[in-house]
Amino acid sequence: MRAVDLIRKKRDGGELSREEIEFLISGATHERVPDYQMAAFLMAVVWRGMTRAELAALTESMLNSGSVLDWTDLPAAKVDKHSTGGVGDKTSLILAPIVAAAGLYVPMISGRGLGHTGGTLDKLESIPGFNVHLEMEAFRRVLALSRCALIGQTPEIAPADKKLYALRDVTATVESPYLITASIMSKKMAEGIDALVLDVKTGDGAFMKKQADAEYLAELMVETGTRMGKKIVALITDMEQPLGRKIGNSLEVEECIEVLHGGGPADLVELSLELSAWMFVLGGRTKTVNEGRELAAEMIATGRARDTFREVIELQGGEVRVVDDPSLLPHARHTAHLPAKRSGFVTAIRCEQVGVASMTLGGGREKKEDSVDPGVGLVLEKKIGDAVQAGESLCTIHYNSEGKLVPATRLLAQSFEIGDNAPAATPLVLKLIGAEKYS
Amino acid sequence: MRAVDLIRKKRDGGELSREEIEFLISGATHERVPDYQMAAFLMAVVWRGMTRAELAALTESMLNSGSVLDWTDLPAAKVDKHSTGGVGDKTSLILAPIVAAAGLYVPMISGRGLGHTGGTLDKLESIPGFNVHLEMEAFRRVLALSRCALIGQTPEIAPADKKLYALRDVTATVESPYLITASIMSKKMAEGIDALVLDVKTGDGAFMKKQADAEYLAELMVETGTRMGKKIVALITDMEQPLGRKIGNSLEVEECIEVLHGGGPADLVELSLELSAWMFVLGGRTKTVNEGRELAAEMIATGRARDTFREVIELQGGEVRVVDDPSLLPHARHTAHLPAKRSGFVTAIRCEQVGVASMTLGGGREKKEDSVDPGVGLVLEKKIGDAVQAGESLCTIHYNSEGKLVPATRLLAQSFEIGDNAPAATPLVLKLIGAEKYS
Repeated sequence: MRAVDLIRKKRDGGELSREEIEFLISGATHERVPDYQMAAFLMAVVWRGMTRAELAALTESMLNSGSVLDWTDLPAAKVDKHSTGGVGDKTSLILAPIVAAAGLYVPMISGRGLGHTGGTLDKLESIPGFNVHLEMEAFRRVLALSRCALIGQTPEIAPADKKLYALRDVTATVESPYLITASIMSKKMAEGIDALVLDVKTGDGAFMKKQADAEYLAELMVETGTRMGKKIVALITDMEQPLGRKIGNSLEVEECIEVLHGGGPADLVELSLELSAWMFVLGGRTKTVNEGRELAAEMIATGRARDTFREVIELQGGEVRVVDDPSLLPHARHTAHLPAKRSGFVTAIRCEQVGVASMTLGGGREKKEDSVDPGVGLVLEKKIGDAVQAGESLCTIHYNSEGKLVPATRLLAQSFEIGDNAPAATPLVLKLIGAEKYS
Repeated sequence: MRAVDLIRKKRDGGELSREEIEFLISGATHERVPDYQMAAFLMAVVWRGMTRAELAALTESMLNSGSVLDWTDLPAAKVDKHSTGGVGDKTSLILAPIVAAAGLYVPMISGRGLGHTGGTLDKLESIPGFNVHLEMEAFRRVLALSRCALIGQTPEIAPADKKLYALRDVTATVESPYLITASIMSKKMAEGIDALVLDVKTGDGAFMKKQADAEYLAELMVETGTRMGKKIVALITDMEQPLGRKIGNSLEVEECIEVLHGGGPADLVELSLELSAWMFVLGGRTKTVNEGRELAAEMIATGRARDTFREVIELQGGEVRVVDDPSLLPHARHTAHLPAKRSGFVTAIRCEQVGVASMTLGGGREKKEDSVDPGVGLVLEKKIGDAVQAGESLCTIHYNSEGKLVPATRLLAQSFEIGDNAPAATPLVLKLIGAEKYS
């Protein structure tokens, strides 16, 4: 078998066999197939797409390039959630303790933020002392004890994805639903989970601006996961405005803690309960989504989710007292307000731009190598549909440097649209994919 | 400027500026842009194509990656011919001496054969002692003295093409009319010529099986050369059967010598005169193609072309006596005949397969690293339209090894179609492109 023939086949729109895909992926992983051949292959995939059989083979080859975690000794279902990323998207930190508190296991391996979106690891690291780099044995111990554990990528998991992702990043081959699916699903399947809930974001603040694209990606991921014998449901959710009110690493942890205390903004609470409920259903913990939602609400109301969050923070070396005293989280030195230019109703928020503003303050990364400033970020006083008076604050900017405040404020000033009438409310969950068999 | 952004732009169907293309090509030449980024870019070009402006910029960037030869001291026009390659396609060795004998300069830089097609360098090297690897000064001296010189690629000429071609070869990005055009035209323009005649082959034995594809490529090349201030005409010519009767390196030299002696098969003579005539017209040597054809015929009839061929062979270190005694060329040790299975007329010849049969005998290369056996090859006794009796020889196979004869014969046995009626004759020159302004 020669890589050039396989590239040609894909270039000409042909279908590669399982063996041919395995040849390329194992070749790339072990440096038998050089990067330039993989780059040409990846561009041909962006061009020609993949059949469902090719995609399943690609995902499995990438999964099998590394270890698949084995939790068969743990006495309940292992479930996880994956979000395609958005602005203020912080549900992982809420639902992991909720679901774990109710008896399922959540072995969550997360990533860092890039561009206008945040990442779970960066948020966790704003908790003083929290260690996301656990060795496999420590990960296992934390998971066994608190039923959830929150870590970053390890070298054992899908090394082919690590290799390919680095190549995609520099060859403009990131944006292919097939390559995205294989990348996400190979890593998530390597977690050794029984079920996965996907939160596929769509709208201005998401990677998939168009709902049709988000649905297509969700269908690919659900079908691929199902072919691999896992229970999968995808929720297509709205990212036309930030989720919740707080954006920025420690500000988002603070908001998660509010939710775990029974407070927090309605949209964030609603989505967290919804995602938790689906995790319960897929994990066999409840029969229906309604029961799942009630169980999730109960985990918050009884404080059990909060207790689990404390437990996992402690087990991973973090400062537990933040759960009851968020002032212990790092904060920016200064705040400024963005006043409304006119009275009326907020009719739209340019969500991606708000994410970029937070990144500009230091809360996110433009390049992977950048470090983040945990304290900075934004608190939205107004969201879509809210009435506002001229001069009233639309959002509070938490910043550490004047030099960063200026460009961030410029972006934010162009991000809020104010009109005469409140727009009709749009649902948070736009569509369910793969949910038929569970209802 | 970042390569990844330029790849993305091409991937999304955008048009790159001259500066952007120059950034990529000079980056690739000087290893500032890594191979994997160029590979992704090349595949994106195969996918999206290029505008005429992009193609001109690409060709010029590749041309300017190396030296452009300067013959302004030589007192007549410099002209060349380039063929896209076929089976038995040996006109270069005929028209270079014809055109030089009539007073124009032909600084011809050629390539080697690959796959089912032959290459001018391999044919020349079947002449004992002939040196195709001249240093630039020696090339200049031969050209000044005999008005033609026949050498292989030098490191000074279009190093970007050398780099990119090697990459295209292993990334399945050879077959793009844009990349083919830039590759051919950058090298030919670097020869420092005033005019170029293109022989774009179409049919079973050509790279472009479909005439429409050949015409499209020809139009791209003519437009690109014209934009670069050169006189260019393309002839779309038939490659549904081998050109002439002899295939294989020394057999083809032998047939060229026949033509220079006033003999040779009609199709080869006709095309050689036609291509020479266009070189005369573009080089300003004759006003019309008819005059050009007559001048070319005169160069053969008077023996002046033959004299020039002797001269260039001598200057390049070859055995001059082959011109009068082709038995001095290397010959295969054995011959075998392919008998016709039935009587009738040859209605078709599977031309590519005939080329592969010659390669299989050792006359061509499957991979670039292979060496060629100069003596082996084929002599077609019958071509399309010829009457044949059952048992009569269709072709003579010149071979050195039984082990190679068997698979070659198997291919040849399937290559001749014999029917009850002679097919209508098809013209050799199917179309002219860019010729309007010269008629």
